[in-house]
Amino acid sequence: MQSQLKDVFPHLRIETDASERQRFGQDWTRFYQPNPLAIVFPKTIDDVQRLVRFAIQNHLSIVPSGGRTGLSGGAVATNGEIVLAMDAMNAILSFDSVDRIVNVQAGVLTETIQTYAEQHGLFYPVDFASAGSSQIGGNIATNAGGINVIRYGMTREWVVGLKVVTGTGEILELNHGLTKNNTGYDLRHLLIGSEGTLGIICEASLRLTTRPKTSAVLVLGIPELNALMKVLARFQETLTLSAFEFFSELALSEVIEHHSIKRPFSEVTPYYALIECENSSAEAEQEILSAFEDCLEGHLALDGCMSQSRAQAESLWQCRELISETISRYLPYKNDISVKVSQVPLFLADVDALITAEYPEFKIVWFGHIGDGNVHLNILKPEDWSIDAFKSKCDQVSPRIFELVSKYQGSVSAEHGIGLLKKAFLQYSRSPLEIDIMRSIRHAFDPHGILNPGKIFDR
Amino acid sequence: MQSQLKDVFPHLRIETDASERQRFGQDWTRFYQPNPLAIVFPKTIDDVQRLVRFAIQNHLSIVPSGGRTGLSGGAVATNGEIVLAMDAMNAILSFDSVDRIVNVQAGVLTETIQTYAEQHGLFYPVDFASAGSSQIGGNIATNAGGINVIRYGMTREWVVGLKVVTGTGEILELNHGLTKNNTGYDLRHLLIGSEGTLGIICEASLRLTTRPKTSAVLVLGIPELNALMKVLARFQETLTLSAFEFFSELALSEVIEHHSIKRPFSEVTPYYALIECENSSAEAEQEILSAFEDCLEGHLALDGCMSQSRAQAESLWQCRELISETISRYLPYKNDISVKVSQVPLFLADVDALITAEYPEFKIVWFGHIGDGNVHLNILKPEDWSIDAFKSKCDQVSPRIFELVSKYQGSVSAEHGIGLLKKAFLQYSRSPLEIDIMRSIRHAFDPHGILNPGKIFDR
Repeated sequence: MQSQLKDVFPHLRIETDASERQRFGQDWTRFYQPNPLAIVFPKTIDDVQRLVRFAIQNHLSIVPSGGRTGLSGGAVATNGEIVLAMDAMNAILSFDSVDRIVNVQAGVLTETIQTYAEQHGLFYPVDFASAGSSQIGGNIATNAGGINVIRYGMTREWVVGLKVVTGTGEILELNHGLTKNNTGYDLRHLLIGSEGTLGIICEASLRLTTRPKTSAVLVLGIPELNALMKVLARFQETLTLSAFEFFSELALSEVIEHHSIKRPFSEVTPYYALIECENSSAEAEQEILSAFEDCLEGHLALDGCMSQSRAQAESLWQCRELISETISRYLPYKNDISVKVSQVPLFLADVDALITAEYPEFKIVWFGHIGDGNVHLNILKPEDWSIDAFKSKCDQVSPRIFELVSKYQGSVSAEHGIGLLKKAFLQYSRSPLEIDIMRSIRHAFDPHGILNPGKIFDR
Repeated sequence: MQSQLKDVFPHLRIETDASERQRFGQDWTRFYQPNPLAIVFPKTIDDVQRLVRFAIQNHLSIVPSGGRTGLSGGAVATNGEIVLAMDAMNAILSFDSVDRIVNVQAGVLTETIQTYAEQHGLFYPVDFASAGSSQIGGNIATNAGGINVIRYGMTREWVVGLKVVTGTGEILELNHGLTKNNTGYDLRHLLIGSEGTLGIICEASLRLTTRPKTSAVLVLGIPELNALMKVLARFQETLTLSAFEFFSELALSEVIEHHSIKRPFSEVTPYYALIECENSSAEAEQEILSAFEDCLEGHLALDGCMSQSRAQAESLWQCRELISETISRYLPYKNDISVKVSQVPLFLADVDALITAEYPEFKIVWFGHIGDGNVHLNILKPEDWSIDAFKSKCDQVSPRIFELVSKYQGSVSAEHGIGLLKKAFLQYSRSPLEIDIMRSIRHAFDPHGILNPGKIFDR
């Protein structure tokens, strides 16, 4: 079948050796053994259509693949699939300064779009630690979130048009970049976050916005989880925040141990809040300082610091942004859970009590985008445990955590998607009826069941 | 069947006399003869579920009905349907100031939500002339737009949760008010804009935002369509606009003739732009005046005025907001079309040429939310024409207009929806494949075909 693929698509790069199949057959989830048939790099939408038809004819499946920075196994290929890597479809196609819309191919890196926007005096606000390697097609397929959601929303907010190949090899052009278009069901929003199961995203039209003015970054040392949301409330009272992140002391000390980064201040506290807000005027600067002082006086924060330059702001951000990469050496079992912001204090207390009781032998690293209700709970694998024993223990405790999520009507995957890793837990956030309807929708887009089978839910 | 309905639902208000059936059997579209079986006013979600099951058992259809201010016949009942009027489900259920989310029943008026938000120091930004009679359930079912879309987006942006009864009488609770929730397909966005064909919206969770600071309203007299977008570009260069509307002299003179409203300034010009933007600082005020002067000096505007008080701002807004009601006496044939903002000048020129040639005998009233690419083209019925002859003539010319819309990849219904009135023209904005997929989705939510049959597309 590999040679047949090469015969039919002689003009395309096709990788079939073990190391490339290993590399392109998995994402940043490390719990699955990749085993794709081959990696194909289409150059045009026509190539994608032909590859889909080839898959149908030969009873093969397709795993669409972007930067593979996903954390739920959405881009994992374990079962003889064709991995359709979008790396060669990486052109910025056009830009209109009146519409402020940029049209791109799916393989363009997130960072490339950010830079392109900046060069045109504009701003693409979706940002996260893996922006340098993730592709926009993958961002859209997973509705990527990140550090600016509190102010700018998820990837969903910025997609005004999509060009997609369905499971029948047909092209859907959705919404054409329009601001207003009430002509039946908005299929664009169905594709966003569909994790490659409804269609292969080939092109996207993205809205850009005006660049933010100068911002200040603060890090505050927080004595207890309960104080965290009070700090958020105090800052939001008078300021518009573009980020409100938190991380635990264990997260910070891991980053400091493995990178040439200094503590933001000498005081060691159980938790830290990282806050970013505009300080373009003297009044804003004064508002920030006054919120800062109120937090110290009210003992909501024990210490803190505020950036005085862009370099200093970036170095404070490193404390937060390097966490995920730093702890990846411990093969963390990641929970990416969210509840409504008002529910965060009660929810965190419940989860904290549960994991203290259930995981006494494990190190827990907390961090997250707490300003939008999203917390990342990372359980680190002890060196002397096997992957299988560790994953099996975590899989045992997960239902207990997800029961809490369900109790608070929260999400079992706030921004990472379901993929393979969370498939068994989808029921904690979505009802049987919802899953039935999703199954019918999937069948409508992909009647042969060839697009990323086994992801999100089984057919 | 009417008496059976009353027997099964003795606790509900049920109207069956001719005048109520006439009143509740139609929306603001006036081209159809209403003929529902009965009007039922459910009080609870349980009532809605039982009514759906009653309809299934008795082979009846249901037309969900809000304020019936729609302009595409989406809430018209011509065929013995049960009209399910949400008027009695009009409670504001709860509000959380941390989340800034208000939970409401579907029958709450748009204006009630706006007022409620204001009382809590917040802002619900979706606004339009019919806010005093439209219901939020209808707003969501049609993804209502209005005058603030350029800054705040459509209704879609503000819905963070929905409680819906499907065509099988089951309840779907979608998204639970979460900011971040990547757990499979976002069915909430499918329901928004589905015009009652996928489910009956019973409750909604709406996001509120901070109130805007003080705003200035300007009206500028514009010599030609082509200058309009240049005025927009000049203002957007330095200012954030919350509205950019336009209307033609015929629209203004109709409003002045029928209301006690004065011309904003003495100069009569072919078109007018109404611009709203924040003027909370001396710098902003200066920026506005400087944009205004540039437009006058560049002959993009021939005259203009700027509000000096809230009362004056409101009176300028009246020139725009009273148009739709004023011209309704002429039974206008409404086109609600949009293209990308960059395409507006070419598109308007093409449409203008077409209607000048095709409708020499009719008066044409132009107005719209031109800052987001949306224009309302109203063709007025001459007094001596019959409704049928007039509609038939308009139906002949419509395909020509929609061919232009299609050429510019625009929308045949920017904010009014498809309903009955635009059903024949859906194909100009959506491909056969899209319509096929929509049909499958509809079947998944409503397998018996009882929800608003005949609307958007035929099964």
